[in-house]
Amino acid sequence: MKRSAVGQTRLSELGEEKLLAQILPHLTNSKRVVVAAGDDCAVVRFRGARDFLVLKSDCVVEDIHFTSATPATAVGWKGMMRALSDFAAMAAVPEFALITLVIAANKKQTWVRDLYRGLNRAAKRFDVSIVGGETSATRGSTAVTVSVAGYVEPKHIVARSGGKMGDDLFVTGELGGSIRGRHLTFVPRIPEARWLARHFNVHAMIDLSDGLGADLPRLARASKLWFQIEKEALPVARGCTIAQIISDGEDYELLFAISPRARKKLSTSWKRNFPNVRLTRIGKLLPPSSFRLPPFPAGYVHFQERR
Amino acid sequence: MKRSAVGQTRLSELGEEKLLAQILPHLTNSKRVVVAAGDDCAVVRFRGARDFLVLKSDCVVEDIHFTSATPATAVGWKGMMRALSDFAAMAAVPEFALITLVIAANKKQTWVRDLYRGLNRAAKRFDVSIVGGETSATRGSTAVTVSVAGYVEPKHIVARSGGKMGDDLFVTGELGGSIRGRHLTFVPRIPEARWLARHFNVHAMIDLSDGLGADLPRLARASKLWFQIEKEALPVARGCTIAQIISDGEDYELLFAISPRARKKLSTSWKRNFPNVRLTRIGKLLPPSSFRLPPFPAGYVHFQERR
Repeated sequence: MKRSAVGQTRLSELGEEKLLAQILPHLTNSKRVVVAAGDDCAVVRFRGARDFLVLKSDCVVEDIHFTSATPATAVGWKGMMRALSDFAAMAAVPEFALITLVIAANKKQTWVRDLYRGLNRAAKRFDVSIVGGETSATRGSTAVTVSVAGYVEPKHIVARSGGKMGDDLFVTGELGGSIRGRHLTFVPRIPEARWLARHFNVHAMIDLSDGLGADLPRLARASKLWFQIEKEALPVARGCTIAQIISDGEDYELLFAISPRARKKLSTSWKRNFPNVRLTRIGKLLPPSSFRLPPFPAGYVHFQERR
Repeated sequence: MKRSAVGQTRLSELGEEKLLAQILPHLTNSKRVVVAAGDDCAVVRFRGARDFLVLKSDCVVEDIHFTSATPATAVGWKGMMRALSDFAAMAAVPEFALITLVIAANKKQTWVRDLYRGLNRAAKRFDVSIVGGETSATRGSTAVTVSVAGYVEPKHIVARSGGKMGDDLFVTGELGGSIRGRHLTFVPRIPEARWLARHFNVHAMIDLSDGLGADLPRLARASKLWFQIEKEALPVARGCTIAQIISDGEDYELLFAISPRARKKLSTSWKRNFPNVRLTRIGKLLPPSSFRLPPFPAGYVHFQERR
């Protein structure tokens, strides 16, 4: 995937996001809805069940999220894992997936077979069953939509909006450089998120799909707060600049807010449970009055310009 | 929408259908899955709930299901109602919808707003909550995927596969000519399907999205049977030929199989409950050994050629 294509996606998505933010709150709603449009997944009540039903739909589009040179198995893997990463963000468990394939005439049957191979490999990794597939022709670009249903226990659900003033901000893994290949091979942090929800009182969480520079303000705004970043602390992937980790996107790592009182216990037991995954405190949540401080130590102006 | 576009969709979908029929049965499956890929919706068990969770995803694509001249509100209505029509086919109740919009750069914000207006109007008609919206840019055609979750009581579920030898075949409404406008304004037969499931033992049901000539063989094959049609009985819409009702598609009426013993009671109480909707017995299910009889009285050769 070319660099320009990634930038274009994000720009466009941020534009649409504002529009959807206007439209979605006005849509039909009901008491059955626990968390509606605007968070990583929708969370609703299902008749007679104690656990909540969690729903998410996402897509990958040719020339935007992949190119004609991307192997179809990698397209399938990415399509499934993007949706599952949103389940991680809410500490939810994905169970069932539907695939909607809008396919260009120039794609061969072997491409579709390989796509499903990638989708299925990714689904199996998290014991997700693909229970339906719908296909349409298109005269335009190929697009793969993955819709996932699953559950979360009411006591474990983590939304974007629960961050509290003074909370520590942590990120999993390393950030930046996903474009060099990881965006096609990443594994969503579902076990990590479930473990966090079981053992800690995580206040707010989001998966980093659009880059720290877009997703951290989202979490802070949803929590009606602002934030401060410690430049030196950022877990920069080898060969990346801080500007890149702020704006590249597609890290699919978790960013979460948690009381500083949990810091020591979290650090110790994380290392014991996930010895191969970094966990880094990158800053903290501040009162909304600090909104006008430049929140990012570097690259922020660049990021603002791109918006 | 031009006539050629409709034919092309169906041709293409039938080609893909064969491919998916090869792929989907081999995908991860589990005891949680009650009805998997191949029926109108997927039906699965949800932790701790007595009712089944019903899932369906479908899409409308520019230049295939609508044109650039189709009002965006009509595109939204059609996109939502196509998915809800599959709920009707299983006597299920839709509750929650997610929208995944892959949008061409030439579309204006007002188009997106009108699209959502149409989606929401359709959702409200059946008390469905739109709980999420995801958007991506594309360099190709606009495509709208609608993913719906809902429920069905285990005793009410109707699949395609339950048809019994000698069953009467009924269709709701009139068939043919949807292309003249009804494909953008139809209302799925959800109340009719729910009423049927509550008061009768319907053996098999399907919604007529690809035309009687495609969908009736699907129902018969799923039930491991074949069928006979009474030409004179077909409820042809004004100005249509029988060849058209067999191959046009997009009727979104219900086709169902039920014991002939229910015929009289069904006819009487249907008229009382749905005085404005025709219900027509069009033929019956036959043993599979009758497979080689020409099943359609007219237009069948035409239909076979098109496949």
